Amino acid sequence: GDAEAEARAIARDHILTKPPGSLGRLESIARWHARWRRGRPMTMERIDVIVFAGNHGVVAQGVSAWPSAVTAQMVGNFRNGGAAINQLSRVAGATLRVVEVAGLAPTSDFTTGPAMDETAFLAAVDLGYASVSPEADLLCLGEMGIGNTTVAATLSAGLFGGSGTEWAGRGAGIDDEGLARKARAIDAALSLHGGVASDPLEAARRLGGYELAAIMGATLAARRHGVPVLLDGFVCTAAAAPLARLAPDGLDHALLSHRSAEAGHTRLAVALGMEPLLDLGLRLGEASGAALAAPLVRAAVACHAGMATFDSAGVATGDDASAP
Amino acid sequence: GDAEAEARAIARDHILTKPPGSLGRLESIARWHARWRRGRPMTMERIDVIVFAGNHGVVAQGVSAWPSAVTAQMVGNFRNGGAAINQLSRVAGATLRVVEVAGLAPTSDFTTGPAMDETAFLAAVDLGYASVSPEADLLCLGEMGIGNTTVAATLSAGLFGGSGTEWAGRGAGIDDEGLARKARAIDAALSLHGGVASDPLEAARRLGGYELAAIMGATLAARRHGVPVLLDGFVCTAAAAPLARLAPDGLDHALLSHRSAEAGHTRLAVALGMEPLLDLGLRLGEASGAALAAPLVRAAVACHAGMATFDSAGVATGDDASAP
Repeated sequence: GDAEAEARAIARDHILTKPPGSLGRLESIARWHARWRRGRPMTMERIDVIVFAGNHGVVAQGVSAWPSAVTAQMVGNFRNGGAAINQLSRVAGATLRVVEVAGLAPTSDFTTGPAMDETAFLAAVDLGYASVSPEADLLCLGEMGIGNTTVAATLSAGLFGGSGTEWAGRGAGIDDEGLARKARAIDAALSLHGGVASDPLEAARRLGGYELAAIMGATLAARRHGVPVLLDGFVCTAAAAPLARLAPDGLDHALLSHRSAEAGHTRLAVALGMEPLLDLGLRLGEASGAALAAPLVRAAVACHAGMATFDSAGVATGDDASAP
Repeated sequence: GDAEAEARAIARDHILTKPPGSLGRLESIARWHARWRRGRPMTMERIDVIVFAGNHGVVAQGVSAWPSAVTAQMVGNFRNGGAAINQLSRVAGATLRVVEVAGLAPTSDFTTGPAMDETAFLAAVDLGYASVSPEADLLCLGEMGIGNTTVAATLSAGLFGGSGTEWAGRGAGIDDEGLARKARAIDAALSLHGGVASDPLEAARRLGGYELAAIMGATLAARRHGVPVLLDGFVCTAAAAPLARLAPDGLDHALLSHRSAEAGHTRLAVALGMEPLLDLGLRLGEASGAALAAPLVRAAVACHAGMATFDSAGVATGDDASAP
């Protein structure tokens, strides 16, 4: 990050026509954006939303209420403008792109072996990396992939510890029996791939998935290009989490857009020390929470860049208040 | 509200291409909007932001860190486009109007008598009522008035009980001594006007203020015209609160846009049984929280109106998932 750009933003914030601190988190968002956009003009001309889609071998364990075919069907829905993320991107003034990873071929079932071999894993990371434009002022990341809350739970447990029961949630609506199968599948994977916590990239390869690897690559590219990132819910956050395990500040250029209703997300947010911007009970994925939060970043930057100063507006400051 | 329009919205929500419930609070916002827009087309063409400005006699008690002259200076700042609410309205795609109530003349100091006589009170309510256009799809309400967190605290205490210490916060940044003066002023007013809780309108006249009365009038007009309302922070919520005391469902057409960092707002939200949409530590007023939350309502309505159904998109439902 650019500490000097952040310092300039802090100095400007102090002279804007408002009581100090009164814009709350919008003030820290503006500083964050200045820091990670690396001193380029504080504008919000271009917001990119990228949804990475992938399929998962672990679906064979009966961990999802939905068939894998829905992944491709929803990609079609994205392309036709019919999904939630299409509406939310439009409201946010953002451009939506959908990227199918590995041609939507499923990973291997990680209860019986690594989800990906090294070549396929790196290709997915690379595809994500190459998807990011340095021209974006903000990047919203999200995913679509039947079965991927199981993957997110497994990867989170692999990185941060804990059991299947602790990390598994109902995803897109699994019943009690399915939830139990999900927890068992997670535990089976953890037991097969034990000890990966010390090697976050190996955890991502063995316990992750194609669209998760692509999200990690995109998050890395955004850091490199100076593009601040909004992460979506549980799956997206888990996908980026290996970067925080590789370096303590590895996700400082990203904010959690929202707290998902999916059980594991709060646990993961706490493990990462990240405070979500929104808490509205969403659990859809598709970058829906990230797109929903994008106007908050736009608002923070607009206030910072557009507000008058006390001097320019002829408004008395609190310090002038000798008499009422 | 229009229960039939709400029922139609619920029925449509069930067939949209997402797992049931996965859009969380956006789903209930869409239902709420359908109910209170009374079955008119679910669009979000026009969002109105109205900021009512007024001054307060109680400022003579040294309850604010800022001089009363700042109210008019900030109105000038609004008119010149330099305030936070100008930027936030633009980001929300909303039209901002600023209404000076009672020509910015101060109310009487309510520690020594009623804040307003009946004529002046009703004129302020009336001005607020007349400010609302039936054409708006959403109305964001807010205020500007040096000293008015003291007024909001006093009115809240008058309506819901509690002491000055319990309701007083630091407003735009008062120091410890000022906070103590604020609590004493509230207690003095409560003792002078004791027993107004049973008559909410009388409480609003004696313990309120011009811009608060106008906000109450505007909230009432919105109900009458079928315009859903986003209330801003502590002052705005306190201004509308008499309507909830007059009838248990009196504020059902309004949502709390955010939880203000001002101490009394959480207490007031609990007393009203309202759950804020955002919780970002704002404490600026000016309708800033309401404008910041407006895109959430826009997003909810856009998803509801724009998403494809399972049938139209050719997406399998969870019920079809006999095999993965």
